[in-house]
Amino acid sequence: MTSLPSCVRIREVGPRDGLQGESPVAVPDRVRLVSALAAAGLGEIEAVAFVSPRAVPAMAGAAEVLAGLDRDSGAVYVALVPNVRGAELALEAGAEALNVTISASREYSHRNVGQSIEESLAGLRSICALAAGRPVDATVSCAFGSPYEGDIEAGVVATVGARASEAGATSLTFADTTGMATPRRVEELVASVGSEIRLHFHETRGTGLVNAYAALQLGVTAFDTSIGGLGGSPFVAGAGGNLATEGLVHLLDDLGVTSGVSLERLLEAAALAQSLVKRVLPSPVAAAGPRSRLAPA
Amino acid sequence: MTSLPSCVRIREVGPRDGLQGESPVAVPDRVRLVSALAAAGLGEIEAVAFVSPRAVPAMAGAAEVLAGLDRDSGAVYVALVPNVRGAELALEAGAEALNVTISASREYSHRNVGQSIEESLAGLRSICALAAGRPVDATVSCAFGSPYEGDIEAGVVATVGARASEAGATSLTFADTTGMATPRRVEELVASVGSEIRLHFHETRGTGLVNAYAALQLGVTAFDTSIGGLGGSPFVAGAGGNLATEGLVHLLDDLGVTSGVSLERLLEAAALAQSLVKRVLPSPVAAAGPRSRLAPA
Repeated sequence: MTSLPSCVRIREVGPRDGLQGESPVAVPDRVRLVSALAAAGLGEIEAVAFVSPRAVPAMAGAAEVLAGLDRDSGAVYVALVPNVRGAELALEAGAEALNVTISASREYSHRNVGQSIEESLAGLRSICALAAGRPVDATVSCAFGSPYEGDIEAGVVATVGARASEAGATSLTFADTTGMATPRRVEELVASVGSEIRLHFHETRGTGLVNAYAALQLGVTAFDTSIGGLGGSPFVAGAGGNLATEGLVHLLDDLGVTSGVSLERLLEAAALAQSLVKRVLPSPVAAAGPRSRLAPA
Repeated sequence: MTSLPSCVRIREVGPRDGLQGESPVAVPDRVRLVSALAAAGLGEIEAVAFVSPRAVPAMAGAAEVLAGLDRDSGAVYVALVPNVRGAELALEAGAEALNVTISASREYSHRNVGQSIEESLAGLRSICALAAGRPVDATVSCAFGSPYEGDIEAGVVATVGARASEAGATSLTFADTTGMATPRRVEELVASVGSEIRLHFHETRGTGLVNAYAALQLGVTAFDTSIGGLGGSPFVAGAGGNLATEGLVHLLDDLGVTSGVSLERLLEAAALAQSLVKRVLPSPVAAAGPRSRLAPA
């Protein structure tokens, strides 16, 4: 087998990236979900977003979610913040780490956050100053292409990442926002930015897991995943959401790559997530169970 | 990038493996589907099964389907046959190639075909004699494990394959009948049987595409796939069917591996398949379109 890393770090994004597009889930249920994910062994959980509750009703109550979480669970709770005001609220509420999105696509940035890439980078700089040493991850969206411009050269994406680091980001995540990544594109990006990055994949075109496998082979050891595959667009029939946490852990377990996460407990968390959003989640491992599950005698 | 083969052969199995578990589709519609798949450039299509119409109503009318097909399409039409009687009917009806399933799992064989592996191999021998030189593929099912025994050692699977070859099979396919394959298991099997095989994957646990990618890296150049991901159990919510033809071709196109198949035409065939079975098929590429599809201006 191609040489693979011995261990991998997973940042769970279901409670934020996953739930943001769903009908709002009550604060106590969001606390339950985050707690179940921490209990499964996930060391980093994007738990909340400090965004306008009018714009994203499902993310309302972020401070209340953070207040409800056990701070001795061993998990770091991350807050997504779109701007300085969001960062202030997140830090006041005790967020231990922040995540800020910068798009590699000018058009996507313009349409989705009404900002140029320059303006987003300036915002990131202010947020990093405010964070005063707390970790700030910059997530570069559309890192494998955009539905507006099509392919975006890996060198252009790398430049956005480098400028985010200059602005003070302590780590970089490259996100396949609309499911355009393939193993070839992953290889091109890693060749440009190195393997000391986190990757964030979607199953929009069913390539999330194969991209993660290709990235592992290239030495990448940090991934974003979402419990139950929550995320993406629940309204595109047949299309998946984010790469499912239990799908990646199921693969890693079989490959002998340590993640520190319990698959059995993840499956319990996936069942909880499914009950909270009241729809069948696009997670084959959650539906079928792990490969070790035998037929009843 | 790991060195990959320059070209790959795909055997389309949707009209048989895919449709067999669906409500019956009328013969003229099955002919239309097979024809659309041949028009997309698929060189080998498992079009029918000569099985008991009482046991598998969706496969009734196999001779009529074969009679309706254009024999100058460039595609070879394969018939699945469970026994000598089926092979006689298939050859009378003009099947150009046969496929016979032998299980690597004693218990699966016993429960699903009521035969021992020995009895299946004896049947295969008779079928090969009857075929008189026409290609007979042996598909070894449960090649990556069985829900009854769990893992099956690659050496045991290899022995079943070797005995199928001795019995006269002209090619071997190893099938992940219940979605237990992983890249590690693929590597173990290829180490035992070599890369001159065909592999057949399911998306039961979302690993079909990553397994195909791992197999490509190991030099395997022949795959079974199913249009729209038809197959598997349509009644397990969230669980996929067979590896989707358009999902594999979408990946191969981006990797620069030639399949001779047109993705655009496959997507038309997938839309036809979906309309015939009257349910949303588990095919992300069919739902989302290829990565090159941009947002409307």
